[in-house]
This record gives sequence, C-alpha cells and structure tokens, in this order.
Amino acid sequence: MINKLYFPCSDEKPKQHAFEAIRKEQEYIGYYALPDQDTAAILQYCEKIPNDIENIVVIGIGGSSLGAKAVYEFIRPVKTLPRKLYFFESTDPVNLTALLADIILDKTHFLVISKSGTTIETFAIYKYIYSLHSNPDAYTFITDPGSPLEKYAQTIHAQILHLPENVGGRFSVLSPVGLLPLALCGIDIDSLLQGASNIKESFFNAGYMQETLLNKAVYYAKHHAQYHINCLFAYSESLKYFCEWYVQLWGESLGKHQRHSAFHVGLTPIGLIGPKDQHSFLQLIMEGTRDKSVTFIKIEDFNDSTVIPDISLPHLESLDALNGLPFETLINMQCDSVMEALLNEKDIPIDIISIPNTSEYNIGALIFYYELLTSLVGELIDVNTYDQPGVEAGKIILKEKLSAQKG
Amino acid sequence: MINKLYFPCSDEKPKQHAFEAIRKEQEYIGYYALPDQDTAAILQYCEKIPNDIENIVVIGIGGSSLGAKAVYEFIRPVKTLPRKLYFFESTDPVNLTALLADIILDKTHFLVISKSGTTIETFAIYKYIYSLHSNPDAYTFITDPGSPLEKYAQTIHAQILHLPENVGGRFSVLSPVGLLPLALCGIDIDSLLQGASNIKESFFNAGYMQETLLNKAVYYAKHHAQYHINCLFAYSESLKYFCEWYVQLWGESLGKHQRHSAFHVGLTPIGLIGPKDQHSFLQLIMEGTRDKSVTFIKIEDFNDSTVIPDISLPHLESLDALNGLPFETLINMQCDSVMEALLNEKDIPIDIISIPNTSEYNIGALIFYYELLTSLVGELIDVNTYDQPGVEAGKIILKEKLSAQKG
Repeated sequence: MINKLYFPCSDEKPKQHAFEAIRKEQEYIGYYALPDQDTAAILQYCEKIPNDIENIVVIGIGGSSLGAKAVYEFIRPVKTLPRKLYFFESTDPVNLTALLADIILDKTHFLVISKSGTTIETFAIYKYIYSLHSNPDAYTFITDPGSPLEKYAQTIHAQILHLPENVGGRFSVLSPVGLLPLALCGIDIDSLLQGASNIKESFFNAGYMQETLLNKAVYYAKHHAQYHINCLFAYSESLKYFCEWYVQLWGESLGKHQRHSAFHVGLTPIGLIGPKDQHSFLQLIMEGTRDKSVTFIKIEDFNDSTVIPDISLPHLESLDALNGLPFETLINMQCDSVMEALLNEKDIPIDIISIPNTSEYNIGALIFYYELLTSLVGELIDVNTYDQPGVEAGKIILKEKLSAQKG
Repeated sequence: MINKLYFPCSDEKPKQHAFEAIRKEQEYIGYYALPDQDTAAILQYCEKIPNDIENIVVIGIGGSSLGAKAVYEFIRPVKTLPRKLYFFESTDPVNLTALLADIILDKTHFLVISKSGTTIETFAIYKYIYSLHSNPDAYTFITDPGSPLEKYAQTIHAQILHLPENVGGRFSVLSPVGLLPLALCGIDIDSLLQGASNIKESFFNAGYMQETLLNKAVYYAKHHAQYHINCLFAYSESLKYFCEWYVQLWGESLGKHQRHSAFHVGLTPIGLIGPKDQHSFLQLIMEGTRDKSVTFIKIEDFNDSTVIPDISLPHLESLDALNGLPFETLINMQCDSVMEALLNEKDIPIDIISIPNTSEYNIGALIFYYELLTSLVGELIDVNTYDQPGVEAGKIILKEKLSAQKG
C-alpha cells in the first residue's frame, strides 16, 4: 500500500507531539494491540459451528456491523466463500421481513453483538428472531465482560465471546466483533491482521507510514477549520461499505466538543465511489466552496481480464479510443484523470492510496491506516477520539417515550 | 405529505423574488412540465416488450440511473413486480461480471441511456454487452434528439426514445429516462406523476407547499455560509437510493461558481438512514461544528404488522418496554427522539417531512418537492442550477490519456 500526498510536509513539532501521544495511548486504548493477537481461539470456535450452517447473521448496529461488512463486501466479489454473511441492523420492519425471507433459520447461525449489552435495535431484532427460532445453540453472543447481555446468555447456556478491554465499537473490527463473522464465512483473518500489523509496524518503528501518516494528520488538523469535509473517493464498487465504515470512524471520533475549549469541532466524512460519483458529487468538489480534501483509493490490479471489445459503432467513432482497453485500465485512468483535474485547481488538498490488489491483507492495512489517522487527528484537534456522548440524549428521550407508551 | 419546519419564517421579499424567478423558469426549463405529461406513448411502448423478458437493465450513469433506482428501490420491498430492474453503471470489471452473472441475456431488455450520447462509461459497458448479445431488438436507446447515439441506433434499426427538451440528467427521473424502466417493471408511473403534480399544483397555486418551500429555500440560502451541509435523515431502508438521488441533485446543482461574483459556493448534501446512522453520523451532528441542517423523513404507515414479541429476557428486563411494540412504531419513535434531541440544541435547523405510506404517489411527491427546493435555492444563492461545467476537466484529461494510450 502506497500513500502519496500532494500537499506540503508538516512541521516537526506537532508531528512529534502527535506521535508521542499515540505511542502512549497504546497503554490504555485497546485497538492498537489487535493486529498482534493470536486467532487460535476464534478459529477453534469456528470449528464448533456445524458444516450445514449456510448463513451467518450479525444482529448488531454501528460498530458491531460496519467493520465486518466492509471486509466481507470487499472480498466477496473475488473469492468463493463457503457461507453467506447477513447484517440485521435496522428496526425497519419491511427490511427485516425481506432479510428473513432470504435465509432458512435452521441453516443459520446468529451472532448477537452489543458492546454495552443493551442496544435497543439489537434487542428488538433479537427478541423477534428468538421468538421464531428459540434454539440457544443457534446463537453466539459478543459483548463486554459482565454486561447484562453476558448474564442473559449464561442463563440460556449460549456461547459468549468478549470484546477485548478498552476497544470501542468503531475500532473493534479486528476484534472478535469482526473476526468471528468473517472467519465463519471463510475470510482469511490472519492475513487481515498481517496487513494491519504491517501498517502498525511501519508507523511505530519509523517506517514509511510514520512520516506519511504524521504529515497527513498534521495537515488535516492544522487546516481543519478550512478543509473540514474529508472525501474518500474509492475507485471500486467493492469499497462501498469500507466508505460507510470510514464515515462512522471519522465522524463519530472527530465530531466533538474540544477537551480544552468551549467549542464544537468536527471533520465531516464523505464516502464516494468512482466513476459513479464523477456524475454526482464531483461538480461540488470542483467548483463548490473550498472546504473539502479528497483522498483517492485505487486498486492497482483487479486481476480481471475483461476487455472493452474492438467494436467501432457508426457515428460513435470518437469512442473507438476505448477499444481493446481492459476495464481495469479504464477505471484507473478515470481515477488518475479526475485527480489531475482536481490538482490543477491548486487549492484542494489531494492524496492517493494505491493498494496492489483485492485481498484480506490489503483491506487489513487500509483499516489500520485509517484507525491510526483518526487517532492522530483526534489528538491534534483536541477531542476525545474514543467516546460518543452526543448520541445519549436521543436514547434517553426514546426511553421516556417507551415508558410513556407502557404507562 | 407534510413538511414541518422548526426554524423561523423567512422575509417576504426574497420569497417573492424566488417564486417569480421559478415561475418564469417554467418557460425554458423542461422538468417543470413533466408531471403533466401524457404517459400513453411510454405505456404503449412497454406493450412491445415481450412477456418473457424477465429483467430490465439500465446501462447509464448519474442522472441516467439514480432516479429510476430511487423509485424502484422504494417500491420494490412492498409490491410484487413482474420484472427485475438492474443498473450497469460502473466500469469496475468485477462489478460488471457479478451483475452479468445475475441475468440471462435472452430474457433481458437493455435500456441504453445517455443524454449527450457519448458518455464514456455507458459505451464501454454497452460495447461489452453488445459483443455478447448483438440482437438490436434487445436494446432501446434514450438520448437527446440528434445525438450521435440516436444516429447510431438508427443504423442498427433499434428503438429510440427522446429526452424532452431542456431537461437535465439529474432532473430527468420523471421523463422517459426514469419512466420507461419503471413502467417496464410494473411501477405505476401515472401515480408517480400524480404525486409530483400535486406538489407542483400546491407550489404554483398558492397551496400549502408554496409557503413551506419558500420559507425553507430562503432560510437555507440566507444561512448557506453557516449551514452549508444539508443532511437528509430518512427513517426507512427503502429510502437509501432516494438519498443517493438527492446527493446528486443537490450537490451537482448547488456546488458552483456564483453567476455574479468571483466566488465558489456550495451546499453539501449528506444522505443518512435511520436508525443505523444514529450509530454513525449522529455524534457529529450533535456535537460537531454547527454547519449542518437536518431534514428528517418519516413514513407514517409502513403497512407492516411485525411486532416485537412479549418476551422478557433475564437480566435484560430494562428492555421489556419494547415488548408488544410494532416495529413501525419503534422506528418512528426513534426518529422523533433524535429530532427532539437535536431541537434541544437550539442551533441546528431542523425540519421533518412525513409521508403517509410507501407508494408511487408519495415518492413522486418527494421527488418534485426536492426538485423545486433545489431550483429555489439555486436561484437564491445565484448559481446556474442546471449546468455542471466542473466535470468537464476530468473528461478532457481522460480523452488525452486514451489518445496517448492508442498512439
């Protein structure tokens, strides 16, 4: 994975400050250790799930689903997987009914994932599914040690896995929250972790990623008042859910009250997919307010031999330049062309991440790259990267409404 | 459809200015007339497509696909449709191969949609599919009169439909661009147009929507420098692609150089789906920079009887308040709770659109509401709402790269 920045290098002092802070965070923030974990227990657990289980369903929302979905949807188009993975995330009844129509309950194993163990959406859905299929062996629960969910799971003698200590939901994809559903579907989780580990090693041990990530983080933080919308423009349909994962990671970590001021700050994430969004959002980047940075993501080798055929269409000869071109060459030329057009504007911060191909290793690297970048920027703009106090107010109001409804 | 605004009414003068400008635009901007068109020709054309055609494929990108997809994905979960609708939009080869694996060519009719008639993505895909399936009867072309695509289609004696005059791609969903694929799949396009017509009538003839849309547009325009990110928070999975349509409409129309200044302006659209994005983007709205407005969309009646069962789980008794609650009540209570939490912040502009149920009529109304709002805001922030000059630079660079490749 290569990340080329087209904006100036940053000052040494904030880089050193951010690096030191992140180095120390390793002592009390759990996600940094995840790339180096031993996956034996997870892989052994997978062996317990019978071979006639065809579907894995994650009942979880936000940090409990977005990471596994990002990896699964990236790998699925290029690898034959032994099981299908579904995500039941919404209280939308029409969506729930449609998802249930796709699976046979007896051939499905359900992973109920809730860090706190009391997520409203997760339990509304779980209660419904449990009323249809009340076999405790069909469920595995993933939650914090000691949560009400763990205690409940014990009463029905169901299997329980724990989140590691001090790993927040949106940083949990490389914990059992993401690894178990992925491993159950045939994703190579060791390779995923190796990709993450490579970025970690490079960052903490003065490798290529240290300089790159620090330059990028300091630039983003220093200019956050101007360039406060950060677009991720990925040239592959398979990165669509990676973009959704990024949106949660970035928005929920960096939209906060500052720790040492009375002010709100926030960096707004936007996920875009090329070339489709050239015909949608690009105009706004190109001619709109200068408040957006853009990171392109390109897959160097799609490992696909589909070629645009050598057909000349009468009256459309201007399109003959496409003839004989592999689609994978075309899509990457489109990425390069849009990037050059934006660079010509001079006042839009641009960088590009190139990943060699579609593999577990590379998506693992991309995930850890973004987690480190988020931690660095959070430190530099003076927020608590790891909490989300702003979502509580709505939950309290909902609880009041639910009580009023009962009363 | 009801739209309640929780921000102050706007001054009369800019409202009158905007209304007059839009009233006059009807003379030369084509989309305003679309709700009142006669659909007989489109419905007759549908009769020509053999009954054994099971799939309709749109080969088109941006304005040629997003509108039909928004309507189809809204209606599909609640109506049994006679055909499936697919969208081939990307030059991503892995995605193209996956889509082709889903259809039988002999049972598929292809709609090749390109306003200009020279869209790179559309022709790369068309050439590939035509090389696999070279029967002209399997294709219908939709393009501007006199375009190179029309001339080509004539040489192979294929069927051609036209875009009406002065209808831009992103405003074309209620033209044959959207109506033909939708009608071919059993969507009631007359009802769709009636919904749009109702909003049009109400707006232009001093109905409820006139005051509402003008108040909202003037508020958005007046405060566009502060509240320049406009979130659409829809509480239904079926509105996911409506959000994507909105992002194109809003971003590409309102991200521009001003007509009478040297400055860039831009309103940034964000599409969110509840309750999922409560666990992602909500923190940023709640505690981040005060630069976002939020419009909630709620479906009053999902027409779904799924109820959370009356099961009490040991140690999780705090969730018993959910027992017996219909999911459709819960999701709307979630919407109300988040809206109340944001209203309590006092400095976030909020409004809510309630639609009675999931129907063609209601999505038609929603579409025309957003088209009118876009036109009004574009007029008020002094941009040309209907062009997209910013996307040309990248196209020119791509053409140079393609020529260099050949040379």
